[in-house]
Amino acid sequence: MRIAYSVPPAGRVFFWATILMNAIGKTVTAYAPASVGNVGVGFDALGHALDFAGDRVRLTVIEGKDILLDAVTGLTLDLPSDAGSNTALRALRAIQDEYNIRVGARVTLEKGIPLGSGMGGSAASAVAAVTAAAEAWGLSLSEDDKLRFALEGEAAASGGLHADNVAPSLFGGLVLCEGVRRPHVTRIPVPRNIACVLVHPDLEVYTRSARNMLSAGVSLADHVCQTQAIAGFVAGCFRSDLDQIRRCLKDVVIEPQRAELVPGFRKVQSAAMANGALGASLSGSGPSIFAWCESSQAEEIRGCMTHAFQADGVSCSSWISAVNAAGARLED
Amino acid sequence: MRIAYSVPPAGRVFFWATILMNAIGKTVTAYAPASVGNVGVGFDALGHALDFAGDRVRLTVIEGKDILLDAVTGLTLDLPSDAGSNTALRALRAIQDEYNIRVGARVTLEKGIPLGSGMGGSAASAVAAVTAAAEAWGLSLSEDDKLRFALEGEAAASGGLHADNVAPSLFGGLVLCEGVRRPHVTRIPVPRNIACVLVHPDLEVYTRSARNMLSAGVSLADHVCQTQAIAGFVAGCFRSDLDQIRRCLKDVVIEPQRAELVPGFRKVQSAAMANGALGASLSGSGPSIFAWCESSQAEEIRGCMTHAFQADGVSCSSWISAVNAAGARLED
Repeated sequence: MRIAYSVPPAGRVFFWATILMNAIGKTVTAYAPASVGNVGVGFDALGHALDFAGDRVRLTVIEGKDILLDAVTGLTLDLPSDAGSNTALRALRAIQDEYNIRVGARVTLEKGIPLGSGMGGSAASAVAAVTAAAEAWGLSLSEDDKLRFALEGEAAASGGLHADNVAPSLFGGLVLCEGVRRPHVTRIPVPRNIACVLVHPDLEVYTRSARNMLSAGVSLADHVCQTQAIAGFVAGCFRSDLDQIRRCLKDVVIEPQRAELVPGFRKVQSAAMANGALGASLSGSGPSIFAWCESSQAEEIRGCMTHAFQADGVSCSSWISAVNAAGARLED
Repeated sequence: MRIAYSVPPAGRVFFWATILMNAIGKTVTAYAPASVGNVGVGFDALGHALDFAGDRVRLTVIEGKDILLDAVTGLTLDLPSDAGSNTALRALRAIQDEYNIRVGARVTLEKGIPLGSGMGGSAASAVAAVTAAAEAWGLSLSEDDKLRFALEGEAAASGGLHADNVAPSLFGGLVLCEGVRRPHVTRIPVPRNIACVLVHPDLEVYTRSARNMLSAGVSLADHVCQTQAIAGFVAGCFRSDLDQIRRCLKDVVIEPQRAELVPGFRKVQSAAMANGALGASLSGSGPSIFAWCESSQAEEIRGCMTHAFQADGVSCSSWISAVNAAGARLED
């Protein structure tokens, strides 16, 4: 356990008891953005934030140690309300346990991210909860700690610890995650004027099942191709080399296994590429499809992608976002 | 076929015949450095040049279309002398065939790189040959063309096309290769004051057999770990972040399969790491072992690595090189 506060052990219990009892009734609101996990080329490694949608957690400090889900509003109303299955509550419980927090929380969760959309909704709820709790419970959590607790929450949805949605939702921008339990997160620069088109068909895919369907093995040839691609993609971002990004923004390992989950995926992807996208793939485990492109082409590419879905009889919503979208924040 | 010269087709045959006949008897010498393939973290993707050893090709233009190996000198004397098996001759034959060159070459090969050492000797011979031939035969080959012909030569030794020795030997420095047949090569910046210690035990490992022993599959978990590592390694190089390079310079896929080929490998690797190396692994398919470290620690790490080999009864040679070593060059 890492200690992020500096009260000497002898006075710690009294100190905490005092400031936390004073916090009873305090209400804090935090917002965390949706995100594109994997970014095609970096399964369980890369992710970036989105600027058009996010989840909001309003947390009120209460007496006792209960973590209660007061209400869920917005796009999803029927989330689990126990701290084992709900990502926000599970993250709060993890903080409470580790720091032996002697007060509880009453939570309102406003879902701005559709459930099962592949836009990192479960991660955003956990990130917003951690951001709110750190403020409400008066904890000076390091960024590493926030990441760790949000990951613990996210595990309620995905069944594993991976940071490719949690980290971009927390920190914003494009990030690379190394490691699993205590990942190191590196901000990767994004060339100017790059936009992300996100198209969300009216379908649901659940991370856990999309993960369970993956083959346990990768051919050596595909492995080599994909390591070259992610290395070239990262180099291309640092070098602002759009040709390199275009060559490398691909996924020969995961995408072929998941493509069939999303009717029309190949047509939508092809429509994006034919109209100048730098790359297009599943956002997380789908069904949303993202495309990176130069900002000036974003509207046209969005039109082609939505048209391709609609031509297949699939209705969809679509947005355009900066790739360098901001991360989680407190709200008044 | 890509045409790198600009003579209009109608005059081409006459043009070439004239300048090539004038070149009879012309002698050109080229040098190409040894290299570290894979650099541990990037199997078939990364490589960097070494500044202490290389191969030298002296090429004399002769009448007729023969490509003849006149002599082999230096560290290896018994190389194959047919254009199918010798990497230098095979590269020359590939150029001759593609450009329909109507003269031949008589070649002296000075091997400064021990055969089967894992220091990219077969690649360096091919690169030196291509560099010499471009000058002697008066071809304005693009860098892409040189790479392609040297790769074709290298295939004589390794049984496949992969550029992780050819590209650094040709271009120098640390390079990332994407693709197989026509790889794109990107120069990756290396933090200042980083040295490479190279320890070569008196053992031989042949690339082709070291390659054939590899499992055809990689577990998904190892694949994810390795993609995170190579992406982090490249980011660490761009960011001059030695901690990130240290975390990421590892190989969970290939090294475990090849380690047993080199008696004492784990002890030598551990000796390097215990003494502050940023990372240590097999150079190419071994048996040489490289370690990256801060320049100020290079002598000490070299001592520990050679001592570890010797303690196991394995004699060895060792060197210290810049990572940003120069690539191939013409010599007077």
